[in-house]
Amino acid sequence: MSENQTHMIASWVARTKADDIPDNVFAWARHCVLDWIAVTIAGANDPDVNKLVDLALSSGFGTARVIGHGTGFESGWSVAINGMAGHVLDYDDVNERMVGHPTAAILPAILTAAQEEGSPARDLLAALVVGHQVASALGALMGPGHYAAGFHATATLGAIAAACGVGHLLRLDTDQQAHAIGFATAQAAGLKAMFGTSAKPFQVGRAAQAGYLAARIAASGMTARTDALEAENGFISTHAQKNAVDLEIAPDPDFAITRTLFKFHAACYLTHATMDALAGLRRRHNLSADDVRAIRLQVHPGILGSCNIPDPQTALETKFSLRHTAAMAVAGTDTAGLASYSDDMAAHPGLIDLRNRVTVEPQDWPQDRMMIGIAEIDTADGQTLTAQGDSGRPLRDINNQWRRLSDKALTLVSPVTGKEKARALIDAVASFDTTSALMEACP
Amino acid sequence: MSENQTHMIASWVARTKADDIPDNVFAWARHCVLDWIAVTIAGANDPDVNKLVDLALSSGFGTARVIGHGTGFESGWSVAINGMAGHVLDYDDVNERMVGHPTAAILPAILTAAQEEGSPARDLLAALVVGHQVASALGALMGPGHYAAGFHATATLGAIAAACGVGHLLRLDTDQQAHAIGFATAQAAGLKAMFGTSAKPFQVGRAAQAGYLAARIAASGMTARTDALEAENGFISTHAQKNAVDLEIAPDPDFAITRTLFKFHAACYLTHATMDALAGLRRRHNLSADDVRAIRLQVHPGILGSCNIPDPQTALETKFSLRHTAAMAVAGTDTAGLASYSDDMAAHPGLIDLRNRVTVEPQDWPQDRMMIGIAEIDTADGQTLTAQGDSGRPLRDINNQWRRLSDKALTLVSPVTGKEKARALIDAVASFDTTSALMEACP
Repeated sequence: MSENQTHMIASWVARTKADDIPDNVFAWARHCVLDWIAVTIAGANDPDVNKLVDLALSSGFGTARVIGHGTGFESGWSVAINGMAGHVLDYDDVNERMVGHPTAAILPAILTAAQEEGSPARDLLAALVVGHQVASALGALMGPGHYAAGFHATATLGAIAAACGVGHLLRLDTDQQAHAIGFATAQAAGLKAMFGTSAKPFQVGRAAQAGYLAARIAASGMTARTDALEAENGFISTHAQKNAVDLEIAPDPDFAITRTLFKFHAACYLTHATMDALAGLRRRHNLSADDVRAIRLQVHPGILGSCNIPDPQTALETKFSLRHTAAMAVAGTDTAGLASYSDDMAAHPGLIDLRNRVTVEPQDWPQDRMMIGIAEIDTADGQTLTAQGDSGRPLRDINNQWRRLSDKALTLVSPVTGKEKARALIDAVASFDTTSALMEACP
Repeated sequence: MSENQTHMIASWVARTKADDIPDNVFAWARHCVLDWIAVTIAGANDPDVNKLVDLALSSGFGTARVIGHGTGFESGWSVAINGMAGHVLDYDDVNERMVGHPTAAILPAILTAAQEEGSPARDLLAALVVGHQVASALGALMGPGHYAAGFHATATLGAIAAACGVGHLLRLDTDQQAHAIGFATAQAAGLKAMFGTSAKPFQVGRAAQAGYLAARIAASGMTARTDALEAENGFISTHAQKNAVDLEIAPDPDFAITRTLFKFHAACYLTHATMDALAGLRRRHNLSADDVRAIRLQVHPGILGSCNIPDPQTALETKFSLRHTAAMAVAGTDTAGLASYSDDMAAHPGLIDLRNRVTVEPQDWPQDRMMIGIAEIDTADGQTLTAQGDSGRPLRDINNQWRRLSDKALTLVSPVTGKEKARALIDAVASFDTTSALMEACP
């Protein structure tokens, strides 16, 4: 293992300029902003997020803004609450190398800092690109052992990546940035045991706050140490279980943010590939439920433990049912909408009728086909239609991706703001040139 | 390993009443309060603590109090800054089973909560007793592997113990308390790599804040999980490196707080035993420097790497010099005073003359004699005087301990407040019956 990972990351963060980032990478950053704002607005009035809002306002106040709750918040609280709200639906973007949700901890930290600094959009987006790069590099550096050991990488690595994103926005030099990484490692926490509880999004919010603080503290001149990742008793030796590998931070020519995966269905991620395949068949062949005699889903056997509830009875169970989500895709249900997963929909006769025609057929596939799903439909007129979905590969057509993200945002934001404001928000994310212009479009 | 450690701790915290705590244990709690307030007042204007104060006040404000800085702070910030200030001198109390400083993270969290709740002294002190008990039990539960792996137990275990202390003050029931432990584990962080940097006291302050938040969040009705310690991918499996042992939380008849070790010299802890031995000889035999021909120090060889700088040149080096600190003890220097460790004192001719008469003689002792120091003085009139110090054993005479803690507090606080207010503060800690009475005596 090389000896100076902290310095390599810090100096890359410090020397990377917005001009080094190609336009298409900035476009990806806007996609991440749109997606995160949409899920955050939809999550901002979750009952537990509201508890955090109450606690924040009883603890003190300030001028920072929390999406969906206006201004009046102490800065660190604004970061933590936006961080929790963005992850409370578990519907936010994914980076496979990080084994986590990259935007979740990074963007809330950057957003509060950018409002305080009056940053132009270009600075905010560049900081997000930098944060993603660090999150991805850290994921590779720590190796699979970090996540396997029980650490929630979205929070642990997210705190460090957020410190790098904010540090970039604040234009920290290499030394300051290394100290910011040090302060982030001093606070980095988050356990996989919290999955399925409110502590999961809470620890992501707290991680965002940790990253924000780490960069602010380093900017104030406080010093930690400049080798906190690789130091004896440092972050890698305490958190990597000896699986750490060499660091690759320089992204030339690709930036990690262009490998971001977005969730387009509000169900378990492992159901997405088969839903995509079926939705494509439905669209291309203009199928209705009556046209479908049988549906076979070929999937990796490793996903069955997570998402193969054959006859779901509750809203939550429908999200973890390959058969039910397949039925939704064939029926043309809006699988992006939160309301489409309900106890009523679990008992919907048409969907039950369709899901009874679905057979799940696990295949003897290698590990790297975990995100693949193949759907076969036997039609009433005797044809067999086949399509493959791959939820592990970023979309190639960025315009198509923006359209799908806009549809998702409209679905998530309209119930909160009405359709008109939701459309205005999407336009604002597409074109904002200052942070304040972006925030004015948010509820 | 038993299966329900989280529940055992939570239910013990929830069912332990102030009436279950003997008077002598309350006395120990007052000793901890006196000692912590004294080191916190002395640390409150450390340059890095002041950076945190500036950052807090630029982030927002509230009504909470920071020792040495008045009111006007958001609650969580008040906990974090008091937490950093209390540990910035590394002069605060120690619990051997915890392998850390128990009061450091616990009391700042309790103190802010007790002010908010208007708690009587008895509640505040009982919460501190409970926090110590949990810190000690967690230290034993996690085993030596936790600290050896690189985790800073003062921060990691301190966050959980602080959540239990505040939870006790807020009268959480067993279930809520278990969730508070869960939220604390979701935030528990701190690396030994930070030793010697400002991130060490910072991560302790952040841990105190984490514990405070965890209890407040659980009190608000938010839920994590009630088995966060022992759960798969929980705190023990991620942080104990398989050295965890059975939990003992019930303290009957002893409470862990009665095993607290206080630091009475502002130097490396491993120099304390020989200083104590020499100061005793000096006092009993009314020795002056001229009476001393030679000094031999018998110590465990394991401490030499930390504190055997033979001819220190700087203030910092004098704190890690067995020879120099021995000279100070024989000369009657106030070894509790921060100002006694200076560049000037390193070059003081009288002390140099004395330390040149000191020989360090490592002994082939077992591991459990690490905290022992034996001093032999050959006097000018041909006698050999011998005494043993043991900095690993709590003082037996609690009145003597209070007197020594009062002397230490007077030394630390007088330069900040003047002697009169320092004496009034010591009296206030001895007799306060409400939290506000205590706080009014603080600067």
